[in-house]
Amino acid sequence: MYNLAVAQSGGPTAAINSSLSGVIYEAINNPQIENIYAFKNGIEGVINDNFVILNEKNINQKQLDILKLTPATALGSCRLKLSEDFNNINYKLITEEFIKHSIKAFIYIGGNDSMDTVLKLSNYIKEKNIDISIIGVPKTIDNDLLITDHTPGFGSAVKYLAVTLQEIIRDSEVYELKSVIIVEIMGRDAGWLTASSCILRTNGEYYPQLIYLPEKTFDINSFIEDINNQLKIYTHIVVAVSEGLKFSDGSYVASGLVINGVDNFGHTQLSGCGKILEAIVKKEIGCKVRSIELNVMQRCSSHIASLTDINEAFLIGQKGVVAAIERQNGKMMYFKRNKSKEYTVTIDSTDVCNVANKEKLFPEEFINVQGNNVTDDAIQYFLPLIQGEVIPPMKNGMPQHFKF
Amino acid sequence: MYNLAVAQSGGPTAAINSSLSGVIYEAINNPQIENIYAFKNGIEGVINDNFVILNEKNINQKQLDILKLTPATALGSCRLKLSEDFNNINYKLITEEFIKHSIKAFIYIGGNDSMDTVLKLSNYIKEKNIDISIIGVPKTIDNDLLITDHTPGFGSAVKYLAVTLQEIIRDSEVYELKSVIIVEIMGRDAGWLTASSCILRTNGEYYPQLIYLPEKTFDINSFIEDINNQLKIYTHIVVAVSEGLKFSDGSYVASGLVINGVDNFGHTQLSGCGKILEAIVKKEIGCKVRSIELNVMQRCSSHIASLTDINEAFLIGQKGVVAAIERQNGKMMYFKRNKSKEYTVTIDSTDVCNVANKEKLFPEEFINVQGNNVTDDAIQYFLPLIQGEVIPPMKNGMPQHFKF
Repeated sequence: MYNLAVAQSGGPTAAINSSLSGVIYEAINNPQIENIYAFKNGIEGVINDNFVILNEKNINQKQLDILKLTPATALGSCRLKLSEDFNNINYKLITEEFIKHSIKAFIYIGGNDSMDTVLKLSNYIKEKNIDISIIGVPKTIDNDLLITDHTPGFGSAVKYLAVTLQEIIRDSEVYELKSVIIVEIMGRDAGWLTASSCILRTNGEYYPQLIYLPEKTFDINSFIEDINNQLKIYTHIVVAVSEGLKFSDGSYVASGLVINGVDNFGHTQLSGCGKILEAIVKKEIGCKVRSIELNVMQRCSSHIASLTDINEAFLIGQKGVVAAIERQNGKMMYFKRNKSKEYTVTIDSTDVCNVANKEKLFPEEFINVQGNNVTDDAIQYFLPLIQGEVIPPMKNGMPQHFKF
Repeated sequence: MYNLAVAQSGGPTAAINSSLSGVIYEAINNPQIENIYAFKNGIEGVINDNFVILNEKNINQKQLDILKLTPATALGSCRLKLSEDFNNINYKLITEEFIKHSIKAFIYIGGNDSMDTVLKLSNYIKEKNIDISIIGVPKTIDNDLLITDHTPGFGSAVKYLAVTLQEIIRDSEVYELKSVIIVEIMGRDAGWLTASSCILRTNGEYYPQLIYLPEKTFDINSFIEDINNQLKIYTHIVVAVSEGLKFSDGSYVASGLVINGVDNFGHTQLSGCGKILEAIVKKEIGCKVRSIELNVMQRCSSHIASLTDINEAFLIGQKGVVAAIERQNGKMMYFKRNKSKEYTVTIDSTDVCNVANKEKLFPEEFINVQGNNVTDDAIQYFLPLIQGEVIPPMKNGMPQHFKF
């Protein structure tokens, strides 16, 4: 018997605690694992000897169920990037901490940067011939990891976006006045989440009429022309924009710009891409316009999480523990979408070097020729990911959250 | 037998269609009512002869259930204010439209301005001796109507705010870094919704540590001092601010200001009060800071509506029809909270002149001495309003919305 360590890293999602819940559940029920060391704030907690010990005596099924639907990282997070140099003190501190506590398996739940940590750490322990299995469990609302069909956390973000966008659309339609709503959606480099707004079509919505992704260069004149064209057809226009839109010179739309007669729309500190575009539409078209930044709610709205996502996140956490027990090392768990009529996934592991420090952009083939929308073919990719609703445990009319 | 008219006006809420559903349900099932004339875009639809006719043949229970949980005004809205002068053509057009279609009862669902319409129109028909019952059914997320214990739509806004704020709090806690989150909440003159954030205390949260309402003059120096004081105690600070905060000179915080060395934070077009305060905290304190504008989601998030609110909104719509059939005129329906141990309300009617063009502010007695928080006594007022969850009818993983 030995101990297993777990930690979380990177930006929050609505499903990252479901993976943690899956890891704890599997480890508690596995006879080879004695105690779980749950480190606080990612590998910083490992370096600083900051952890809680979990076992069947101090965490029960009810708590695991609450944890499953608690948003953000219950163990805290970190942004620490390990050095390229194995002589860096952190490698020694981390492995000594593991050895000290008889930890022979480490599950790291996180995104792109966290997979870099898994890669470096597993290479280090291979080089030093230390017997620790290091396994990455993915999460990110950006859906920008290679190999995996999609990332845990993404489906819940898509569901939040779809439900909220549909409600914003109803809200935007109440007056007869021509209007433009610009909704700013997370995604600095990859437009997966913004692109997913196309799924509203399956409920008969023709909104959002325009979708702009960071995968395509953004042009102000085409944007104004696109909106004017839509206003000839519809009274109300909803536009989905990725926060990471860039001009042809590579600068972010969000960093502000000068257009004729109007100097410097907004302060970079004050304005996101949506606010900038709102000001441009106001000036160039002059109709009623509002921008909405969905902000962190996109990544933490557990109350409207996708049941499919929450269940898959739990499962991939469990499978991560199984892989560690099999003594796999330097692997990331991933989803493979099966070629069946009904949507199902198989969970497998891949060398983490196939994923770390790489980025999967939204495919060109799903973007229309004009670069201002997503084709219907993309719908079948997104739709299964948002199916099913969760029922959060409620207390006083509000969800109960788990706290360590 | 005669016909009944219904229309909606003012800003959207998550519950205004539940009241509409209640009106339609009651009118369909009342033997005295033949057809329902559902006018589009409030009294504009009455003036422009724009309506749909509803009866038991063309709307069924399933549709009424979907309508009940559809956000915003399914019949559209308007902002038209009737003239003080009864010689204005609109009075003639409206009453002629009603007489032409044998309409003897008119239910107007709306907020403060809509009650002004009910008042003027009922005075006009009294003066002209026309037999039409005109009844107002309240709605507003602002909760700023007199007489009624609370307004339909408010409870759902409170629930959305509580659930979302709790998720934002979890999201804000993941890093060890000192941080300030400023959440901007709707309420131009009355701080009811912002104040309601105090209910998180019942779930053991100590957030938001600071609550600023438009009922109190806002002072930048005290604000910075308050935050610095909180940062001595807590790593993460969450601040709830009403969009309508004003300085002692009566100007809105949102309209920008000059502080030492920094000229004109932001453009009024670009910045709400939250963004302005974010910039001030960044400059004066220098810690990590983020502002979040909850925007229209506060008034249209039907998926997380309060069951209590939705049911009460339905009932008050029904009772409005009953009052009209009793030939009441110039009345607004309202909630009286009963002095029982269990929360219950009685629905009655009041002369609309007691409500129209008046405003109920958040009570002084519930604001702390420093003017930067709400006392625990306020919790018992708010808490019953958010109890119970709705189960929206789902299609493809997204709520189904009703469309006329």
